[in-house]
Amino acid sequence: MMRKPDIHAVIMAGGSGTRFWPLSRRKTPKQFLPIVSDRTMVEETVRRIQPLVPNGRIYTIANGAQTRILRRLLPGVPAKNLLVEPKGKNTAPSLIMATAWVYLKNPEGIVVVLPSDHLITDRAAFLKKIAAAAAAAGSEDALITFGIPPTFPSTGFGYIHYRKEGVRRRSGEPFFEVKAFKEKPSQEIAEGFLRAGDYFWNSGMFIWRASVFARKMERFAPDFFPFWRRMLEALKAGSRARLAAAFEEIPALSIDYALMEKAGGVLVSEGSFGWSDVGAWSSLAEIWARDGAGNAVKGDSVVLDSRDVLCYNPGKLTALVGLQDLIIVNTKDSLLVCRKDLDQKVKEVLEILKKDGKAGYI
Amino acid sequence: MMRKPDIHAVIMAGGSGTRFWPLSRRKTPKQFLPIVSDRTMVEETVRRIQPLVPNGRIYTIANGAQTRILRRLLPGVPAKNLLVEPKGKNTAPSLIMATAWVYLKNPEGIVVVLPSDHLITDRAAFLKKIAAAAAAAGSEDALITFGIPPTFPSTGFGYIHYRKEGVRRRSGEPFFEVKAFKEKPSQEIAEGFLRAGDYFWNSGMFIWRASVFARKMERFAPDFFPFWRRMLEALKAGSRARLAAAFEEIPALSIDYALMEKAGGVLVSEGSFGWSDVGAWSSLAEIWARDGAGNAVKGDSVVLDSRDVLCYNPGKLTALVGLQDLIIVNTKDSLLVCRKDLDQKVKEVLEILKKDGKAGYI
Repeated sequence: MMRKPDIHAVIMAGGSGTRFWPLSRRKTPKQFLPIVSDRTMVEETVRRIQPLVPNGRIYTIANGAQTRILRRLLPGVPAKNLLVEPKGKNTAPSLIMATAWVYLKNPEGIVVVLPSDHLITDRAAFLKKIAAAAAAAGSEDALITFGIPPTFPSTGFGYIHYRKEGVRRRSGEPFFEVKAFKEKPSQEIAEGFLRAGDYFWNSGMFIWRASVFARKMERFAPDFFPFWRRMLEALKAGSRARLAAAFEEIPALSIDYALMEKAGGVLVSEGSFGWSDVGAWSSLAEIWARDGAGNAVKGDSVVLDSRDVLCYNPGKLTALVGLQDLIIVNTKDSLLVCRKDLDQKVKEVLEILKKDGKAGYI
Repeated sequence: MMRKPDIHAVIMAGGSGTRFWPLSRRKTPKQFLPIVSDRTMVEETVRRIQPLVPNGRIYTIANGAQTRILRRLLPGVPAKNLLVEPKGKNTAPSLIMATAWVYLKNPEGIVVVLPSDHLITDRAAFLKKIAAAAAAAGSEDALITFGIPPTFPSTGFGYIHYRKEGVRRRSGEPFFEVKAFKEKPSQEIAEGFLRAGDYFWNSGMFIWRASVFARKMERFAPDFFPFWRRMLEALKAGSRARLAAAFEEIPALSIDYALMEKAGGVLVSEGSFGWSDVGAWSSLAEIWARDGAGNAVKGDSVVLDSRDVLCYNPGKLTALVGLQDLIIVNTKDSLLVCRKDLDQKVKEVLEILKKDGKAGYI
């Protein structure tokens, strides 16, 4: 009889971004916002995995300021599980640190890496896939990743090229061999990927056994392996200074680039569980409850002769008259009104604010 | 040599309205809002007349709650000049009371009646017209009114039909005999008025000598004359109770209906001084400073690819992206976003709020 795998969930909560400006600010990026529900996205991420992973084995990794927010948002997660990266250096250093932390508890522990700012609507399917992948990670020497079946030729995601043939079943779920990781492609190349039919979007979700991660790193990421050892030692010794020193020197690379695309024996599981990266205000139009005319309004509202308007103005009244395809976001000090298909221009707004010495609004 | 007329200005500050919702609320109608400048409209009205009328001869008439606001807004006007109407009963009762108050000081005093919620951009022309009309009112037995040359067939104003021939000049300014006052017309009739070319819009501005007002009332408004006498006595005796009793019984009619359209010897002066009744948000698009693309924004702003947007969001940042012909008004508890040509639908919004038990937003 197989031993039940010892699963540890590492929630990547260190991201920053302003695509949800003016709601998202430098200090409160997307994962700290209640944009997909009444809870913040990081809370939703934790709640989603809890049936499979108890609080004591849930970790977050983020910077110090973000960790103070996490402590408030996640009172159930032990404070010692809220890992603080000494310096923001992309995902490889953070995941080496988090995996080393799990390794110290149990080298055969399974690490489930979850971004904190994605939406997954089919929780049951998600948990089934995670459980199957954890079981596979427990029994094989494989790094496992999740691929999202692409629905359009996005140039905003990385892609995973996989071998359609030779599907392996584990706990009844199919796994594919990864042929290559592809960085964000051009439009033309993305269209080629979709036509080819053997590409997934890279979800940034990973599963590995701590000892397998260490061995793969030793073999495929020799530049990083010394840092693995240093971090392991620093964490074992409880030395913040040595951890910080390792973070100073380690290259700032993504785990995809540092390890996944170099390693052999990477498997991908099809992430068919209602995934969305919730990349911009307009993506919420698919997520929030809408009225018959496609209007989604957070807050009290009176809507006349309007359709396909997305409005975030909780705790206040919004009256919409004669509108169409707009995004409206009202916060304490800033109001955004934006044509829905131009939401990528919010970046320009932020650049102008910076240039005009009004960075306080960012 | 003619004696310099003893001019008293009565500012009608008792109006209520919600056309500037959500900025205007039940307790803060248009005249109390800083919508045409950084000062409230009633402050602007007082400042406009001050070169001709000292503070000691400036009066307001409004209800008790409004008068408390006026006291704060108009510290230069003596408190005893802030007349409180015991009950809101349209303009005839208020103007009888205010004129009686002036009559007690000087029966030959000239009363200039000014609405507090209109904009006049050419102050010099305005003062010249008022001075000439005051001189005329001082020397003739005439009630004088101001007519605005109509620029479109409005169905929202009353009209003054005047005799184009037989213009009389007083202090160099032309005055016309009034043939008739016309209530708000249908579209068709309004178009006829414009074609005829001998109609003005009724501005609600009047000038009369107190004693002439009393005599005209005795002759042409016999239903109201007893109330004139009762109010005069009540004010003389300082009896609030008797004043209130008169207000209880007096018919609630406009001064136009009660007196002006019945009286003979009414003159009209052409109000060519940049008048606007500032009737709705869209009318401010003509008044506020605009950028090259016709956008007028109150408050900090970043505007991209937008034109002809009117936005009121002072003290906050507004970012507009890809918009056209919108009205945006953001207040403490309510946000209105409305297509510019549909601003009359704000009334419907208020009706819905009332029906839904959300009158707190009104």
